[in-house]
Amino acid sequence: MGTAPKRDLVSIDDLSCAEIMELFRHADQFREDLRSWSDLCRGSIMATLFLEPSTRTRLSFESAMLRLGGGVVTAAEASSTSQAKGESLADTVRVVGGAYADILVVRHPCDGAARVAAQYASVPVINGGDGVHEHPTQTLCDLYTLWREKGELEGLDVVLCGDLRFSRTIHSFAYALARFGANIVTIPYPGFEMPKPVLERLDAEFGVSAVAASVGDLPGLAVGDNSAAYLTASRPHQLALFTRLTPHHVERIDAIYMTRAQRERHSGQSTEGYPRISTELMKADVMRDARIMHPLPRTDEIEYEVDSDPRSIYFRQAEFGVPVRMALMAYLLGAIEIEAESPEQFASSPGRRFGAGVGALCPNERCITNSEAVRYLPAEFRIRREDPPVLSCAYCGASRRAEWIGCVTSRRYHRWDSGDARKIKAENRVYFESEEQARVEGYSVGR
Amino acid sequence: MGTAPKRDLVSIDDLSCAEIMELFRHADQFREDLRSWSDLCRGSIMATLFLEPSTRTRLSFESAMLRLGGGVVTAAEASSTSQAKGESLADTVRVVGGAYADILVVRHPCDGAARVAAQYASVPVINGGDGVHEHPTQTLCDLYTLWREKGELEGLDVVLCGDLRFSRTIHSFAYALARFGANIVTIPYPGFEMPKPVLERLDAEFGVSAVAASVGDLPGLAVGDNSAAYLTASRPHQLALFTRLTPHHVERIDAIYMTRAQRERHSGQSTEGYPRISTELMKADVMRDARIMHPLPRTDEIEYEVDSDPRSIYFRQAEFGVPVRMALMAYLLGAIEIEAESPEQFASSPGRRFGAGVGALCPNERCITNSEAVRYLPAEFRIRREDPPVLSCAYCGASRRAEWIGCVTSRRYHRWDSGDARKIKAENRVYFESEEQARVEGYSVGR
Amino acid sequence: MGTAPKRDLVSIDDLSCAEIMELFRHADQFREDLRSWSDLCRGSIMATLFLEPSTRTRLSFESAMLRLGGGVVTAAEASSTSQAKGESLADTVRVVGGAYADILVVRHPCDGAARVAAQYASVPVINGGDGVHEHPTQTLCDLYTLWREKGELEGLDVVLCGDLRFSRTIHSFAYALARFGANIVTIPYPGFEMPKPVLERLDAEFGVSAVAASVGDLPGLAVGDNSAAYLTASRPHQLALFTRLTPHHVERIDAIYMTRAQRERHSGQSTEGYPRISTELMKADVMRDARIMHPLPRTDEIEYEVDSDPRSIYFRQAEFGVPVRMALMAYLLGAIEIEAESPEQFASSPGRRFGAGVGALCPNERCITNSEAVRYLPAEFRIRREDPPVLSCAYCGASRRAEWIGCVTSRRYHRWDSGDARKIKAENRVYFESEEQARVEGYSVGR
Repeated sequence: MGTAPKRDLVSIDDLSCAEIMELFRHADQFREDLRSWSDLCRGSIMATLFLEPSTRTRLSFESAMLRLGGGVVTAAEASSTSQAKGESLADTVRVVGGAYADILVVRHPCDGAARVAAQYASVPVINGGDGVHEHPTQTLCDLYTLWREKGELEGLDVVLCGDLRFSRTIHSFAYALARFGANIVTIPYPGFEMPKPVLERLDAEFGVSAVAASVGDLPGLAVGDNSAAYLTASRPHQLALFTRLTPHHVERIDAIYMTRAQRERHSGQSTEGYPRISTELMKADVMRDARIMHPLPRTDEIEYEVDSDPRSIYFRQAEFGVPVRMALMAYLLGAIEIEAESPEQFASSPGRRFGAGVGALCPNERCITNSEAVRYLPAEFRIRREDPPVLSCAYCGASRRAEWIGCVTSRRYHRWDSGDARKIKAENRVYFESEEQARVEGYSVGR
Repeated sequence: MGTAPKRDLVSIDDLSCAEIMELFRHADQFREDLRSWSDLCRGSIMATLFLEPSTRTRLSFESAMLRLGGGVVTAAEASSTSQAKGESLADTVRVVGGAYADILVVRHPCDGAARVAAQYASVPVINGGDGVHEHPTQTLCDLYTLWREKGELEGLDVVLCGDLRFSRTIHSFAYALARFGANIVTIPYPGFEMPKPVLERLDAEFGVSAVAASVGDLPGLAVGDNSAAYLTASRPHQLALFTRLTPHHVERIDAIYMTRAQRERHSGQSTEGYPRISTELMKADVMRDARIMHPLPRTDEIEYEVDSDPRSIYFRQAEFGVPVRMALMAYLLGAIEIEAESPEQFASSPGRRFGAGVGALCPNERCITNSEAVRYLPAEFRIRREDPPVLSCAYCGASRRAEWIGCVTSRRYHRWDSGDARKIKAENRVYFESEEQARVEGYSVGR
Repeated sequence: MGTAPKRDLVSIDDLSCAEIMELFRHADQFREDLRSWSDLCRGSIMATLFLEPSTRTRLSFESAMLRLGGGVVTAAEASSTSQAKGESLADTVRVVGGAYADILVVRHPCDGAARVAAQYASVPVINGGDGVHEHPTQTLCDLYTLWREKGELEGLDVVLCGDLRFSRTIHSFAYALARFGANIVTIPYPGFEMPKPVLERLDAEFGVSAVAASVGDLPGLAVGDNSAAYLTASRPHQLALFTRLTPHHVERIDAIYMTRAQRERHSGQSTEGYPRISTELMKADVMRDARIMHPLPRTDEIEYEVDSDPRSIYFRQAEFGVPVRMALMAYLLGAIEIEAESPEQFASSPGRRFGAGVGALCPNERCITNSEAVRYLPAEFRIRREDPPVLSCAYCGASRRAEWIGCVTSRRYHRWDSGDARKIKAENRVYFESEEQARVEGYSVGR
């Protein structure tokens, strides 16, 4: 085992593109004979803390660890755990990530929970899905499968289809596609469009611009006329957020990533007319090279008859989950070496405080800092962009604008675009959404 | 690991008698020191998919796999699985039986589910109990224990007692006893007699004939006068189905296989007066060589005082489950070799279609082809007997008569016993229950 | 593996002080590198039978076994087990403790259940918590952590605080502290005082005497004036049971063992004003050398701000649980040797019958002998003291007085303090609570 400092995978951003590609080459190796690596992590233990139901993800991790020769302990379902006795996530991971296990996989219903786990555990933490926030290992498996099929990722035209609102795998996958230079066509089920914060982040970090899209004949897929959009990553552009869009015609689709209606997240709402991949759709000309992807489990959004089409690769995605997770865990446990440089900043790097009082809270009510962690954890924010300042929650990524900037030494505040504001040194800045908020904190208006 | 084609254990019929005896000799070997085989299947992973509660069977399998040096991943209880999100069994096993595991053990509430799993998984599937259909590894353990105790199986007189209707272990055990030439005495709790389809299959496959039975003094066991029956396997006889029976007196019992009232399957019905094995019964002369068997868990149908009687072997049955399952899994994983020939046909071999429309469905409403699999799986049937034709569901074994036979080339149908019907080649035959059904399918009556 | 007779850990009394200290030295060794012992118990299997929810204890055991190189099978939660089908604990452990596993860990809601498991299993049984009775491995971890911190146990002043009534860890810990010569200060939440039977046992076995205690300034801890008591072990004294107490002033605390309100055991009752360890308390002079202990999970009874105080050792307690349990299991499996002598009598040693009829039952309604085991298990008692005779249940420890003693040969009974009573040989004695009870049993009054 190596002696590298602890690395976590809270967000897909915690791995650089080069690291991801190296992990993929390790996954290739593992895949040659899954049964022949049972000495690589012998003596290590993985704990899975699954506070939301899951079979696929948990079994995939457990299988990966067993194939590496390690041991597995599992705490699945809140009812069987100390959480039922009122224990905080911070306490749970401090205990389990002590002597019990050498690596933790955490699934949790709150957005941002994985970062809390990473902060408190003394061993590497892998995000197995936190609320509607991220699911980075699913994204690794998706990217790997697509890369294996297409030989590259840059320039691919990938359709994200169905419930783009509540599907965390969609969000993580979109960030990763943008990062690797793929283009995204969104075909949402009406009412389940890609959330604005995700689009904002795509814009802020990758300069993703959107244009209206028209895609050839896609029977059973596109619902309504104005739903499709084409998102392409190109630093100089600004995201127009679906207004004044120049139409772009998609001639050829490289992959459709289909998602089920997350019924457990929007119960009560009907999903009639939900898009569906049928044998008829597969015959469309624009689909000739398209791979059909799905994070599974599916319900009815892909016809069973499509399973036997060679372009259907959703079972391969699941299959490849094991070697990809083997590579990731072997890396985090120090059992394999990666030469690529890591990102400059990690999702678990410290953030900064935002104003005070109520204003200091994350605006996302599903965020863990507004849930159980309110007892022990102050909110933290990161500066997402400067003109005007937008800060995002260091846990769940939800963002808020900061119109006013204070100086911690002079105790005065100024509008963000004033000359005085610009003169405040970065380390002295404190951000406020309103003057009211600044005054509550004891700041007075700048001269 | 060997390179033999995938073998499943869906039904006890998937193993030939000779294979079973060879497995038993391997079990003998494993039993000598259970702790010394931990290199035999190192690197292999077993997944248990238990969609119905169980401790005993699941732990027995898990223990067997760990003793073989393999790894175990477990998905127990529907609530914690993707099934709760609406996933089909076919999808689940395609994922789990991909890279996750090298062998699957499936328990499912629907009759015939194990065959669905075997069809869709790319790795060997073991039936851990499917509805009231079969539970073949329990039968292997039962046979092994009885064989160890008695030195042989042929000619033994074995009493099956209690709930013979809902107990799948009873059904599997009865087929196996008939196959090995043992005789069966049925002493059912009134209303819980052996189901007619089981008797029909015993007749069709092993020529089992029934006679009324009188058994010496069995206090607390036989309820009512006419309940006991003696079933003996002898090809030339026809099963009389309990009418016009010649009484047979049983002088000596080799084993009583007791079952509990499956309260979870017939809730609401009282089980007052359920048969009970007591110390008093053990004193009966006819019991002097009788072994007491029970698949466990028991409730009150065997007195606790009987536990210390050396003829009580129910805890031994459970104990022997581990070495027997070790032998089975080592065989299916190719880690040990068996010289005996396998059966000509497996439970997962393809069947044939039965008529059309509603008539094409399995008559058993608990069958998986009438449950979730209706979405993706057509019913399939096997010809169980020819004069008159009886077809049985290839999944759950439920049978239906086929009075009419069609020819797929001439599109005409005939009565089964007509000369025209007999002239239709086997591969061209399609079976109908009624003329109506044939006409719906587009067949016209033969000239 | 050794060939020593089966040893169980039902009660902390099943290990002698010398054995405990040797186990601690093994734990020191294991702790040096937890990952390097994976050959010590290779081939062995541990089964955890957890019929009450738990994460911490179960994961700690599973992790310990995996780190020893063994395998783990788990039956957690009654709903997924044969218990739901009405199986007795005795049957379950006979099956699981047969070929399935080489060592069992049992958690059960009934007091005394661990002894039942130990009696029926053919492999070593470890009590993972039985009702409000004992939780001996938690006590081992607590003692080990305290010993590591303080370098000794004798003479320490340890405060037990909070819910002293329903916390089984408190009871086990108190017996152990008395045995190692530590002094106990009880600071209960009003209404949750240490139960009388526990105090009686402390008196009977260790001559623990109680004095009223006053402890320096303990903000947020002591509730009311008369709640604190000082318990010190010294054979010559008699326990005064909190009457006529000489006040003792505690100048310096070595450790505070805090417990949460066991809400699942006293639901409905408010816990307002429950004691709380705060940063303010930590500043008290009497606390300067105090270690803060907690069995976890905590709810709010220790402020999160206290976590970073170096005197907080509750996460270390959890961490040390793994090496301590490794030592214990390696010992019980015969993989390490201990030179120290074992206790003369074990918790699972046979007891004796108490009177007859209703009087023969254990007075504790939560005792397993009054629960499911009533079907198959007679109550058994041990003589706890002789003048006057007090007998305690051999399962749960609950005690009852025996005013009358009968002789099984003469069939006569006498008052316990009569000369005739004293003449009856120990092996012929039978104890009665009342003359009525003796007469029901068929005894007549002594001449």
